[in-house]
Formats: sequence, structure tokens, C-alpha cells
Amino acid sequence: MAGSTFGTLLSVTTWGESHGRGIGVVIDGCPAGLPLEENDIQIYLNRRKPGQSRFTTPRKEDDLVEIWSGVFEGKTTGTPISLMVRNTSQRSKDYSEIASYYRPGHADYTYDCKYGFRDYTGGGRSSGRETIGRVAAGAVAAKILSELGISVTAYTKAIGPVAIDYKRFDLSQMEQNAVNMPDAAAASLAEAHLDACREQQDSCGGIVECVIHGLPAGVGEPCFNKLNACLAKAVCSIGAVKGFEIGDGFDAAKTCGSRNNDAFYRQEDGSIGKKNNHAGGILGGISDGSDIIFRAAFKPTPSISKEQETVNKSGENISVSIRGRHDPIIVPRAVVVVECMAALTVLDMLMGSMTSRMDRIQEFFRCHP
Amino acid sequence: MAGSTFGTLLSVTTWGESHGRGIGVVIDGCPAGLPLEENDIQIYLNRRKPGQSRFTTPRKEDDLVEIWSGVFEGKTTGTPISLMVRNTSQRSKDYSEIASYYRPGHADYTYDCKYGFRDYTGGGRSSGRETIGRVAAGAVAAKILSELGISVTAYTKAIGPVAIDYKRFDLSQMEQNAVNMPDAAAASLAEAHLDACREQQDSCGGIVECVIHGLPAGVGEPCFNKLNACLAKAVCSIGAVKGFEIGDGFDAAKTCGSRNNDAFYRQEDGSIGKKNNHAGGILGGISDGSDIIFRAAFKPTPSISKEQETVNKSGENISVSIRGRHDPIIVPRAVVVVECMAALTVLDMLMGSMTSRMDRIQEFFRCHP
Amino acid sequence: MAGSTFGTLLSVTTWGESHGRGIGVVIDGCPAGLPLEENDIQIYLNRRKPGQSRFTTPRKEDDLVEIWSGVFEGKTTGTPISLMVRNTSQRSKDYSEIASYYRPGHADYTYDCKYGFRDYTGGGRSSGRETIGRVAAGAVAAKILSELGISVTAYTKAIGPVAIDYKRFDLSQMEQNAVNMPDAAAASLAEAHLDACREQQDSCGGIVECVIHGLPAGVGEPCFNKLNACLAKAVCSIGAVKGFEIGDGFDAAKTCGSRNNDAFYRQEDGSIGKKNNHAGGILGGISDGSDIIFRAAFKPTPSISKEQETVNKSGENISVSIRGRHDPIIVPRAVVVVECMAALTVLDMLMGSMTSRMDRIQEFFRCHP
Amino acid sequence: MAGSTFGTLLSVTTWGESHGRGIGVVIDGCPAGLPLEENDIQIYLNRRKPGQSRFTTPRKEDDLVEIWSGVFEGKTTGTPISLMVRNTSQRSKDYSEIASYYRPGHADYTYDCKYGFRDYTGGGRSSGRETIGRVAAGAVAAKILSELGISVTAYTKAIGPVAIDYKRFDLSQMEQNAVNMPDAAAASLAEAHLDACREQQDSCGGIVECVIHGLPAGVGEPCFNKLNACLAKAVCSIGAVKGFEIGDGFDAAKTCGSRNNDAFYRQEDGSIGKKNNHAGGILGGISDGSDIIFRAAFKPTPSISKEQETVNKSGENISVSIRGRHDPIIVPRAVVVVECMAALTVLDMLMGSMTSRMDRIQEFFRCHP
Repeated sequence: MAGSTFGTLLSVTTWGESHGRGIGVVIDGCPAGLPLEENDIQIYLNRRKPGQSRFTTPRKEDDLVEIWSGVFEGKTTGTPISLMVRNTSQRSKDYSEIASYYRPGHADYTYDCKYGFRDYTGGGRSSGRETIGRVAAGAVAAKILSELGISVTAYTKAIGPVAIDYKRFDLSQMEQNAVNMPDAAAASLAEAHLDACREQQDSCGGIVECVIHGLPAGVGEPCFNKLNACLAKAVCSIGAVKGFEIGDGFDAAKTCGSRNNDAFYRQEDGSIGKKNNHAGGILGGISDGSDIIFRAAFKPTPSISKEQETVNKSGENISVSIRGRHDPIIVPRAVVVVECMAALTVLDMLMGSMTSRMDRIQEFFRCHP
Repeated sequence: MAGSTFGTLLSVTTWGESHGRGIGVVIDGCPAGLPLEENDIQIYLNRRKPGQSRFTTPRKEDDLVEIWSGVFEGKTTGTPISLMVRNTSQRSKDYSEIASYYRPGHADYTYDCKYGFRDYTGGGRSSGRETIGRVAAGAVAAKILSELGISVTAYTKAIGPVAIDYKRFDLSQMEQNAVNMPDAAAASLAEAHLDACREQQDSCGGIVECVIHGLPAGVGEPCFNKLNACLAKAVCSIGAVKGFEIGDGFDAAKTCGSRNNDAFYRQEDGSIGKKNNHAGGILGGISDGSDIIFRAAFKPTPSISKEQETVNKSGENISVSIRGRHDPIIVPRAVVVVECMAALTVLDMLMGSMTSRMDRIQEFFRCHP
Repeated sequence: MAGSTFGTLLSVTTWGESHGRGIGVVIDGCPAGLPLEENDIQIYLNRRKPGQSRFTTPRKEDDLVEIWSGVFEGKTTGTPISLMVRNTSQRSKDYSEIASYYRPGHADYTYDCKYGFRDYTGGGRSSGRETIGRVAAGAVAAKILSELGISVTAYTKAIGPVAIDYKRFDLSQMEQNAVNMPDAAAASLAEAHLDACREQQDSCGGIVECVIHGLPAGVGEPCFNKLNACLAKAVCSIGAVKGFEIGDGFDAAKTCGSRNNDAFYRQEDGSIGKKNNHAGGILGGISDGSDIIFRAAFKPTPSISKEQETVNKSGENISVSIRGRHDPIIVPRAVVVVECMAALTVLDMLMGSMTSRMDRIQEFFRCHP
Repeated sequence: MAGSTFGTLLSVTTWGESHGRGIGVVIDGCPAGLPLEENDIQIYLNRRKPGQSRFTTPRKEDDLVEIWSGVFEGKTTGTPISLMVRNTSQRSKDYSEIASYYRPGHADYTYDCKYGFRDYTGGGRSSGRETIGRVAAGAVAAKILSELGISVTAYTKAIGPVAIDYKRFDLSQMEQNAVNMPDAAAASLAEAHLDACREQQDSCGGIVECVIHGLPAGVGEPCFNKLNACLAKAVCSIGAVKGFEIGDGFDAAKTCGSRNNDAFYRQEDGSIGKKNNHAGGILGGISDGSDIIFRAAFKPTPSISKEQETVNKSGENISVSIRGRHDPIIVPRAVVVVECMAALTVLDMLMGSMTSRMDRIQEFFRCHP
């Protein structure tokens, strides 16, 4: 229950603190025979690495992944894949002061309440570095999905008040700007907004959107394990996420049924399609074959150098100004984390969907006696 | 994985279809010694019953709960509590037509994709009646929480474009109006809006807000089982929920860190408090002792009598108008469902938090050798 | 964790006490499209019913199963199947005396320690009637396995000192005698032994053996979820089981490697076979394609009318003689329970084995896009 | 489901192959505040190390444990503890031949069936080295139990035909002989038996017995998660275990109820005791406060240099003689593995038992608001 394991058929267990020896993940249930090398994973880790733009912390973290088990002669064996990234660039002295007080917006206070004390160096387990395990595992899940014709793509939809305009949507722009926005014009505005935030020693929130394409209809379970419910948990388990919505989300609450219902129609090839996708690709908790679309709201980075009020461990009111190297925004580096949590969720449920019909189970074992 | 079981230490398993013999739930892990009688549960079920106002379906469903196991001489025994509600008022003829086509916004199509066929009477397992099991179990969880000084309270925050005004917030109003709004003026406007929807043979969405009061700090697990992540899953697993947010939620994405961070301060009694609660009572996935506040967005009822386009099972484009007895809005009856899912989640994680510290485990077994 | 749920992909949750309103089980994850009617299950329940021979209690229990959900027009829908048997013939007065003391060999004392009190009528949840849920669910699992060409067959191997002789092994004999032994001669001796036990107001233990035929190679997981480990848990969770062994079991501990290893050889059809089956069909926790063979040791019925010493709830030493209707032996009625727990375990792991290879997953979704 | 994770509240996930980079385990749910250093774990790992006597393989494996996370300033933090042992002494050339055929008694064939291929170096994941993760985690569990006054002690009960005599039982002898027998005379006979086996290029099986002392009454769950069932799974998941029994085990099947029932009586201090312990400390799946006693049967080491028949990957019948460094017996090194699996199981269920009573939960949160 302690909650460092996620998933049923494909399960991942993460470990590691910001300033410990390293961060890692164990992937259990990965099917055998998948070609896998460190570079498949490194590509994903590089996307969350700091120090890549002027809006990410200048810390240099190499974050090189090492495969410690589960791969033999270039292929997964079906047994646990242990992945690890060593911590190399952590400077503990940066963080020594914060041992004495509770940073607003951080988990310092709640960890002390829960455990009686905490690893105060760099946030310990509650650090953003914890997401390295998620991304390393998600890279493997994404590779499997890709071999099944399923893609998972996330991007920055909004930064503070600046949102992308879908008329200008261009995925290739995402890698051209510092904020991972698929809209060059919005990216410029967002960068200006971030500069202003930083000038005020402040930080900013934003929204990540994610699209899953190619998922067959029939994935997700009817009651508590609805596909949207499992995605909600996966995404809300990322630190700093304060909201989740699928399809039209909160806007659906304001509209009427005749507008929100997606009409079915016969497509040219005779198959069934939908004229809209207000539902975000899920009906009754089960994928309907159209794109899955969801969004996650991230709060502003809690570490700001602007002065804030708080309490120290002696219970005295004090003013603090968090020093150190911090991103003024979490979102651009979180894009790949959202993508990875979605990939892990969808793969797990996709595999789970293989046993939903008696005739398909019979066929499977007739072919593989 | 099939997903009709929810929870780890307190786990609930629901069963039943809209037009089968009944709906039920098995609660496993309920602590022994809790006084429990059918009326404790009936009170909650009555809150989700249809036929209570002009905005809920005129179907008369008695929905009387029966305790079949796990209670002995008026107290829970610690073994599974089996609860059941018989289906009595279902008229199958109402639904026979919908067997032939896919209702927009419903799970008809996805069930067919997943299972090869579906129970088309009244939506089968995807019917709103499935929530009876959740509410019956949640009533037990809420009673336990209540004995521990923890309350869970949900209410309608918005219906279509009409939202409550917190300046007029009055919880006692909730039971005075047909829409469960704690604001009499907003309720009037909402009722007018619903009347207009119905006139247009249409339906409407809305938002439920929920407050958990009295939860100790330290509940929730750091990584994948953050308290907010588990609440997100619980709430998004309710049919028709399209969004979830905690604390400031999506608004946090638009603001800056200095405004979003909740400052800690020393309270008069020497304990630590927060000056605001933008976080919604959770930091780093763990409760901070302040109120937990979250919201769920519900889509409009998909069943509307307004004409809609869809496809029949032969793959032909057709127009349909859903007949039958349907609520123009899901929200008022869903309020208690949200409350119950929150109670189940919080109780499970509260019990899980008992083992987080070595000294407390030692103390426990020193007292109970 | 409370432990009334078993299984991952096919999970069953049981409920009910000996003298409550009924006993039931919810089966979640049953594939859709399986023809299922109450009689499929009743056949199995009849095999565990009391009152069928002079060695089973003369209580008349009809134990008629009712399907409450999950079956539509004669086929499983893929959603939870709720099965129930009403308690009809329980006479509570028989048991009122035992509320005051702890029966040796029963769970009275441990339930009081764990829960603070207990349902003392007929043993409550610790009654043998709890196995009704297991058998009802197991009947469904056995039917699915049967459609996949897999059979699960258990029988009495030994009663007290009397064991079957494999030279006389004849499965058809099993239903010809009161002790479910596939050896007529041994059955006669066993019946005589039981008569002697009863004359001395005593009871007797025994051994059930179970053979699973037709299971493909490759079922079971490498580490903690070895097929034998999961079978061990399933079988040892049946009340009164004190031992479990697979293949040669405890005899393997006494022998040498050259005798215990099963030599592989090329069979006439070119496939690989084994010359012996000391392993009981499992190597490294994974099925090898040969028969799975295991045994369960049952202790003697703890309820005996012979005088015994114990303690009452006031802590005084007393002598008791358990009255009431009790079988002098558990084994014959437990045969079907062992069979059912094996079926549930094997089906769950069989379904789990469908995702072990990347190429098979790809093939599956290529065929079912 | 893939099965490299064990436990619910305290869960462990193991990874690693015999000839990969290392072997490791992640422990999640360990309570915070436990003093822990590498040496606490090393002591346990040293007990399973090879090369310690003439009956264990002469391979020199240092097996030094490294703590990679979850410990801060000498104490557990409550977050995942990652432990690792690097593989240093593995000589892959020793094993290259076995890639071409299926070793009798090994998992080579079943891994190929399940996964399509296998890591053939040193058995890969099915190697005995996999137990390093179990022992490292078990050492932590044992330390926690020890602080709660609970001890777990295993020893060799039998090697081939040689069993200990309880009249000579002396636990201190265990470390004085090469076979971990608490009986000097039996150890001498066992060593002679092993010498004879080795002379014949053969191997030998044996039995490990384990005693858990100090466990409070009330641990274990009534139905599927009986304490004995969970111990059975834990122990049978150790490679080479073919049988499990608790208390009198298979002997209970041969006896009568009057002899098998343990009479309760009032002890001098007024508490309730049992005159015997045929039950092995568990009634109805729940601990009764007396010692838990169970046994595990281990098959002979399958790797023997004696010639054996088998099949190669081309499907041809061949004769093989397994070369390399192999113990003629598994049991002495498995003693600590059994102990560790028992410790993990018991600790998990002990923590789970903390929520069985409403009054104790109320008391807990009254003390820790």
C-alpha cells in the first residue's frame, strides 16, 4: 500500500531520493522479446533533464540510465528490468538550511507529520527527481505501445495565462521552443511571461495535454478501473498536479447533452466512427477507438526566491527566501512525465483487455497450445 | 484487474446490473465492533434515490438495503459485510428498442467492442444504478470516519452555467432545494435553467464539490498512492465524471507561486496552521491537517429525448430519440456518490497510515500484546 | 488485505457465515460469452453437500445456488457474477452453548483475540460452510478450463492410515463409495476405519490428491508467483489443511538428484516429453506441459463428542463434549473444494500467461484491432 | 501479476539474474525510524553465501550489500529502501554449453516455453542467486520483528534420510556444523551421507524447519489470507521447495481428532495457554499466541555431474553431465532464505492486524491526532 508500485500486469516500482546514491525503477511484467537498449530510455530521460533551456534549472545532471537486469542479448527476457540513474551533481550544502523550516507548498511539513522526520536534502523522495523512475519505465512502455501502433504524445497547452491556439497547432514546433508548446506564437508569449515571473522572483503554473492515438476500442474496465479513472490516478500522482480532465472535462459541466454527446456514424469503410470527440475517446470507462485526450493542471513551482512567511521547526514564525537552482515552471519538463504515466497506464490496461472474451482466449490457446 | 474491487485495507466489491435481480456490494476489512444497522446505510441510499424531486426520474425505486453477512448482534464482526438492494421497479420493455442501436454518450458501443455483446436492459452494468453499491459501502465508511471525528460533505457547486456564491454558502439550504445546492439563490437559478433544458428535451452538466474535515496530517503515500491521486481515481471512476481537481485545481495553472503557496504560521495553541488552503489540504500527496477540498465535473445526462444521430447494429445511420424516464441532470443524485467514494478512499488510506512509524507500531503492540 | 478476495485477473470475493442469511461469492473478471446456468454450479455444490452418506452430517442443506448478476440471456457478460446460497436449515439452538467456551481445534479463541468477540453460531465465518463460495466460483472456473481442454480432478488419497493403491486406481469408483476414493478396496477399509472412529466418538484426518490435465507449458511466474506457490496458498487457505506438497513432495527431500530429476526425451510426434513426473508438472514455478499433481493434508474434524479439556470465557478449566451434527471426517466433502481452489488458481495464471511474449501480444492485436 | 513483488503493507520487489550486473530488492512500506545499516543485512547475506563449507560451492561470492535509498542519517525514512549486491565472481564460460540443451530438473525448458528464449548464463533469473533479494529484504523484516519481541528461527531438520532428534536439540550446534543442524550427532551422519552422494556424483534433498516465537494472537486473516496460507505461498515460492506443512502437517492426516486437538487451559498468570501445539500456532488461519512451527521440503540439487538423459534444442535425445560448481545439497544455505520469507510474511500480516478492531483504531488516532 506504501505506493511506490504502480500497475497490475505491467508493474513498476520506483525508489530513490534527490540526494541519495541514485534513482531507479524495477519494471515487472514486461513481455519477453522486445529489443531494448539503454538509448531507448535515454532519449526519454533527456527530455526531462534540467539545464536545457533558460527556463530550467542550470544544474547539470547527466542522468545516464543503466540497465541492470531483464535484458539478455539485446532483448527483454520477461523478468524484472532494473533501471538506474546515479545521482552525480547534487550539492547538499545548497539545501542544508531548509532542514530547519517548512517550505510553503512543499512536502516538508507533511513528511514530518507522517514519518516523524524527513530527508531534507533536496526534498528527498518528494523531489522532482523521483520522476526519473517514471520516465525510464514509461520509455519502455511507450516502445511496446509503439510496436503495437499506439502513440502517446504530450505537450504544453498553457503556461500561466498563455494557451496554445489550435489553429496554429504544429507539433514540430514543440522542440523548437523552450516551453514545449506546439504553437510558435504562444511559445513566444509564454517565454515573455516566464521572464516576467522570474524578474519578480516568482514562478508560474501551466497545463499539459496528452493524446493517445491508435488505441483499440475495448480497453478499460467497467467499474472502478475505468480507463479514465486509472489515467486520473496515474497523472495526479505526479507531484504538482492539481487537476485532471478528459475530453471536454470541466467544460462538459457547463454544456448540454445534445452538444456533449458524440454522434456515431458509418464511416466510408463501413466501420463505426464518431463525428466529434467531446468524450476524449472513452465511454463508460472503456476506449471507443478514437483518440484519448486528457489534460493535467500543474501548480507553480513552490520554490521561489521571493520572500515568504512560514514556521521553523521550533514553531516560530519566520520569513524565508528559497535559494538554489529552481525552474520557474514545472510544465515543460513534466510533459514527458505525463506521457510516460499515460503509456504505463494504457499498456497495463491493454494487456488486461486480452482476457475479456471467452472466444478470444480459446483462440489464443488453440494457436499456442 | 477487472476492476469491481476498490481499496486495499478496506476493500469493496460491487456487483449487479440495472435490470438484473439486484445490486450489491461486499465490504471486506471493516474493523470489528462498529455498531451497524440497515438504517445507517438506508439514510445514504435515500439521498441517491430517484423520484425525489421534479428533476429526478419519476421511477419509484424503493432501494431498500439488506445486510446479509458480517454483522452479529448489531455489531460488525470484522468479516465481509454483504449488502444488497433488490431491483423491483425495472420495466424491461422500456429499453428493448435500444438493443438495436448505439446511444450517443453511452457505453453501448464500447461494451459491444469489449465483450462482443451487452446486457442492453437499462444499461446493464453501466447504469447509474451501479452506484448503489458504492453508496451502501460508503455509508459504512462514513460512519467509521464519523466515529473518528472525520466528516465528508459534498454538495452541488454548479449546474450548467449557474454556480454557488460562497458569500451565500449555507449548508442547511442543501436539503431545502431540488438540486442540493448550499445556496438558495443559486438553487433557484439552477432550477430555472433545468426547466429550460427539459423544455428543449435536453440535459445539463454540473460540478460537485466535496470537503473532508478532521483528517489528521500524515495520510496519503508519497509516490503513486498520493491521497489526491487515489481520490482522483475514486471520483473519476463514477460514471459521467470528466474532470477532477483539488484545491485551486485548474486555476493553480494560471497563477504564480507566491499566490499559490500556503504560508505556514504558528497558531494560538502553538500548533502549525496554514493561512490559506490553495493546496486543498494535501502537500506532496499527504494530508496536511487542513480541510481536503476537491471538485468533480459531471457531463450532462447522455439520455435525451431530443433527436440525435447514431448508427444501428447493422451499421446504418439512423436518428433516435431516447425515450424513458431520465434525469435531466446527474449532479444532485451524484452528490452522495462523490461523498461515498471519498469516504472509502480516505478511510482506506487512514488505516494504511497507521504503520508509517516504527515507534507507533511498537507502542501499539506494547499496549496490545 | 482482509483476505476474502482471491485472484488477480479472475478474482473472487466470498462472504457469509454459517448461520447468517446466506453464503455468497462475487466473481470478477470472468470472460464474456461463456454459457452459464445455475445447474453448472449446482452440480459442484451438490458434491460438497452434507447428508449424502453415513459419514457426512445428517443435516439437510439444500444449498441451492442463485445467479444474481453477470449472466444475460444464458451467457456471462464479462461483469461481476454474483452467486448466492441461502441458509435454510441452520438450527441456532444447537450452538448456543459453545458461546461460553473455546472449542479445542477451532477458531473460537483466535477470533476473540483478533476481533474482541465472535459470531459463535455454527462457527460463523470460520465454518465449513464458507467453502460454498469457493465451490460456486470454482465451478465457473472449471467450466472455462474445460472449454480450453483442461481438467481438474481431485479425489481422496488417504483416510487416517488407509491409502489408495495406485494399482487399483479407478476414478469411476470415486462416486461409488462414501469416501470419494478411486479404489474400491481402500474405500471399504477406510469406511471401516471411520466406523471405528465414530464408535470412539472421535474423528479422523486424511489426504486429498489433485491432478490437473491439459495445462499448456509456460503457466506460472518466475519468482513469488510460482504456480506451485499460488496453488499452495489456494489450498492451504481451505480450513483444516495442514500440509501441501507437489509432485514427490516431502519424499523428494529424502531422495537423490539422479532419481528426482525427470529426464526429457523426444516423443514420437517430435515434441518434448518427460520420462517421469517427480516434479508434479512444474519446473522453476512454471508448468512444463505434463500433469500437475499435488496433495493436501487435512486434520481430523475438530468437533468430537469425546470429552475434551478446555477453558471457558471466565478463564476456568472445564471439560466439554461437543454435541451437534458433525462429520467424522472432512476429506470426502473437501475433495471438490480442493478441485475448485485449484481451478481458480490455474485459470487466473493461465490468463496471466497470455502477456508473456511480445510476439503473441502483437499477433493478438493484429487479429483484434 | 508477473510476480516479482511480494506483500501488501510491507512489499518487496526483487530483480536480477545470476550473471547480470547484480541482484537487488526494493522494500516499500518499511516503517520510518528503524535504525538500519548495511551490516544488519550483511549478516543475513553471509549466512546464504556459498563457499563456506565443503558442501557448498567453492565459488567465491562476496555478496556485499549496498543501501541505495530509503535510509537517512542511519534511520529508515519510510520511503523505498533499495538494496543491491553486485555480481562479481560469475564466470559465464562455465555455462555456455547448457544453452544448447534442457537440464533435467531445471527451469530451462519451461522458460523457453513461456518466453520463447532464455538467459542461459547460470540459470538467469531462475538461479539460486535470486534469493539474495529475499534475504536482504528479510533481514530488514527480521530486525523490525526483533524490535517487537518476535524471533524467526530456521534450521535444517533433515538431510536425505538423516533427521535431527529433538532429544538432542541444541540450537547453538547449528553454527558448529556444515549443514546447519541443531543436533551434532545428526549433523555428523548427514555430512557422511552428503560425502557419499558426492562420491556418486549425485545430490540430496532435505527439510528445513522454522519456528516463529513471540507473535501475538490475532495475526492472520480468516479466509484466503490465512497466516498458514500466506506462509505456504512465501515458502513454496523458494526454488526447489516441493512441500510445506504446519504443526503436525501430513501426520495430522493420519491421526484422530482427540489426539490432534490442542487442549486450552488456564495458565498460572491467568492467561489462556495450550497443552500441546499440534496446530503449529495457528487456528482458523489466525495465530493463537503459541509458537508458529512449519517445515519446507527441498528437492535435491538438480545439477549433478552424474550422466543424465535429456533433449537438446534441436529435439535430439542426448546424454549430459552437468559440470560446474554446484552444492550437493540446497538445504543448509536455504535455511536463512526460509527464515527471511517467514519474516516478510509475518511482518506484513502483523501490520495488517492493526486495523481489525474499531476500538483500537479509535485509540490510535486519539493518541496521534
